[in-house]
Amino acid sequence: MAQLRAFESARTAGRSVPEIVCYEKQDDWGGQWNFSWRTGIDKYGETVHSSMYRNLWSNGPKEALEFAEYTFDEHFGRPISSYPPRAVLWDYINGRAEKSNVKKYVQFSTVVRWVQFDEGTQKFTVTIENLKTGQTESSEFDKVVVGSGHFSFPNVPDFAGIETFPGTLIHAHDFRGAERLAGRNVLLIGASYSAEDIGIQAFKMGASSVTMSYRTAPMGYDWPEGIQERPLVQRFEGSTAHFADGTERQFDAVILCTGYLHHYPFLPSDLALSSPNNLYPKSLYRGVVSEANNNLFYLGAQDQWFTFNMFDAQAWYVRDVILGDAKLPSEAEQKLDMAQWTQRLANLGSAADEVRFQADYIRDLIEQTDYPMFDLDEVTRIFLAWKNDKQHNILNYRDQVYRSVMTGTMACEHHTPWLRELDDSLERYLSQPEEDELERMVRGKDSSASPA
Amino acid sequence: MAQLRAFESARTAGRSVPEIVCYEKQDDWGGQWNFSWRTGIDKYGETVHSSMYRNLWSNGPKEALEFAEYTFDEHFGRPISSYPPRAVLWDYINGRAEKSNVKKYVQFSTVVRWVQFDEGTQKFTVTIENLKTGQTESSEFDKVVVGSGHFSFPNVPDFAGIETFPGTLIHAHDFRGAERLAGRNVLLIGASYSAEDIGIQAFKMGASSVTMSYRTAPMGYDWPEGIQERPLVQRFEGSTAHFADGTERQFDAVILCTGYLHHYPFLPSDLALSSPNNLYPKSLYRGVVSEANNNLFYLGAQDQWFTFNMFDAQAWYVRDVILGDAKLPSEAEQKLDMAQWTQRLANLGSAADEVRFQADYIRDLIEQTDYPMFDLDEVTRIFLAWKNDKQHNILNYRDQVYRSVMTGTMACEHHTPWLRELDDSLERYLSQPEEDELERMVRGKDSSASPA
Repeated sequence: MAQLRAFESARTAGRSVPEIVCYEKQDDWGGQWNFSWRTGIDKYGETVHSSMYRNLWSNGPKEALEFAEYTFDEHFGRPISSYPPRAVLWDYINGRAEKSNVKKYVQFSTVVRWVQFDEGTQKFTVTIENLKTGQTESSEFDKVVVGSGHFSFPNVPDFAGIETFPGTLIHAHDFRGAERLAGRNVLLIGASYSAEDIGIQAFKMGASSVTMSYRTAPMGYDWPEGIQERPLVQRFEGSTAHFADGTERQFDAVILCTGYLHHYPFLPSDLALSSPNNLYPKSLYRGVVSEANNNLFYLGAQDQWFTFNMFDAQAWYVRDVILGDAKLPSEAEQKLDMAQWTQRLANLGSAADEVRFQADYIRDLIEQTDYPMFDLDEVTRIFLAWKNDKQHNILNYRDQVYRSVMTGTMACEHHTPWLRELDDSLERYLSQPEEDELERMVRGKDSSASPA
Repeated sequence: MAQLRAFESARTAGRSVPEIVCYEKQDDWGGQWNFSWRTGIDKYGETVHSSMYRNLWSNGPKEALEFAEYTFDEHFGRPISSYPPRAVLWDYINGRAEKSNVKKYVQFSTVVRWVQFDEGTQKFTVTIENLKTGQTESSEFDKVVVGSGHFSFPNVPDFAGIETFPGTLIHAHDFRGAERLAGRNVLLIGASYSAEDIGIQAFKMGASSVTMSYRTAPMGYDWPEGIQERPLVQRFEGSTAHFADGTERQFDAVILCTGYLHHYPFLPSDLALSSPNNLYPKSLYRGVVSEANNNLFYLGAQDQWFTFNMFDAQAWYVRDVILGDAKLPSEAEQKLDMAQWTQRLANLGSAADEVRFQADYIRDLIEQTDYPMFDLDEVTRIFLAWKNDKQHNILNYRDQVYRSVMTGTMACEHHTPWLRELDDSLERYLSQPEEDELERMVRGKDSSASPA
């Protein structure tokens, strides 16, 4: 969506842009934000793309992901809170894309089966299947932009005896809601965003207990009664998990929060990105241009502190490379540039270092394009304050509010504390409950001040 | 496995056979019988092939699926019961393939990405990915045999409001065991083998209630207290399902037993079989040769009463076509033959008609080859007796015994009635419990005689 928007921005500015075709295997756009109740394999026999769950709310402040050229103020017309639920964020990204009238470039329900590059003609042959008709066909392209992301193919490690576990056993990719965990003893394996958020979702929805199992280090939040962390599971014996510290416990459900794989089944191995989930995949110049083939681009292939606005910065830069407005340096210069970023990456220490690394990366991209520069240092401060909020209280950090770096607008407190809000819909979120109901809610709320 | 075995049989008989490469995306062979605890997407990012669940036992008598040239007697060395659990059947098919020393032809953990046919050279270019290394490569072949089956890609229809259902919600493809359904109110949508068997598995494992929802007609078995059938779900409202008869009920779990799709994501649309699940896909000559390209073959693409021995008959015939021992008739003659089968298919009435249809189909294949002919009429009688057993008592039909048409050996009664056997392992199955334990079990058993 960012790439389409980037080209449309150039077109409306009077530039001539090339013919664009966007293939999307889902029936609608929005990628991860296009929630589906389906898991595993979709109605067409394809892998389900989205890892979204029904009751997901943004786990970072919206002020850190806001588009620089389409603000929350512009979309909603009034202040909203800093941590909207998924339907609200989908509405926002959909609104931006609809406004720029780019849906016409997208062939939905169309999966890319195979991409082949011809060294002689320097063209890509892209073979697709129209999933509604079953028809396959091939077309030639000069440039290919891969925008399928890298949070759709679960990394599912094996554990000794896991095949004997009799309860619910899924990867976070197939988690769709925590209601079904009420009254259950739940084990989450992992210590990153999925474990953290599914853990507090399960707590919110009434799980009997939540245990999170870490490989290297615990998250270390001040967990409430009912949530605990243990070292890695060594083996399962039926419903019992045995942990590395010699303890054991019985569980009703196991959710593997073990991350995702870079996986591009439509690309030959010389073009498919292979990388761990880090802030700078080492074979992508400026984080987007394939070293193996400078006509191939990846968006959002990094690990992400920044999201929507980083994708924009990337898409605007890729657009300018394709339009010829940004010149790619020589192979040697590209290698030198990548080596510098890779070396800096290797020396990062704290989370603050990481955020600053990605802020500098985005600044470097925006400086090459006409995407509106924004206060990346202030966004960095918001990220660090957010981390601080979570340390302070992992259950109510979503009740805190931040100021937009794009518009200066202060977010408003949401009418209902996140922990007590069981309706995740757009309608409920945008509703304005009666004054007395609101008062009652606000009085009941943990009143820790936002550190922002 | 049948195809490899068929070629090896010719080779040991002194025939010269062509170079064979078999690509298998799983780490081991056995297809559906290669159980995995994983669901949805496997460790390499590919769709999980097998729809097998931990506690599946054969749902038809083994005497109906026995290989004509590798009997249960040969494999186990003594009589076993008529309905073995999955591990025992896997052991049987693995034993046959191991004996013929054909594993060397298989490249495991290798997925076929794309197949292209060149009209000029009359060769197939097959592009594969070695999933362990990520390397893709292409090779040319004269013939392609598709043996990936058609029970791996779930057919998952939509239902109004299903996205609001808060409980467990999966397709039967992702069902791995019924233990997790204990104490739960379970809804199965469907009225065929999956619903029938998962329903009684859930009952066996202590589900609070099992409701099965049919589209056209109920299965109509004499269900025990706790299992019932209702017409189709019209809509969901949260955990409540509303049925076509105006009734409603709350559920904790929904399992969609709605069948599977023919899906061949590695084939262009002119070569990919498109068919409903029936006994004679209309574009396959003799049920195996692609009408669109006589160098392309499908095994097991039909709906199945007969299984292992039908796959053998098909594989032996395909082998002989490839070796040139069986001549394909002209296109017109092929069409005429297919039309005759298709017309007969359209006029089938009863289940008995269906079984006889498939028996005649297999007889026609075996008559073209040197696969040992077996008493197909007797197998037909076994199928009909099995149906009768199920009508008599759906909970204990697996305790009945049949006589092998291959060896004349009578199956022995299993040491434990199926409904009380909670250990599905090969070891437990082949164990011979102490006399007193056995006596206790047998005394406790419903002693209805087998109708065979």
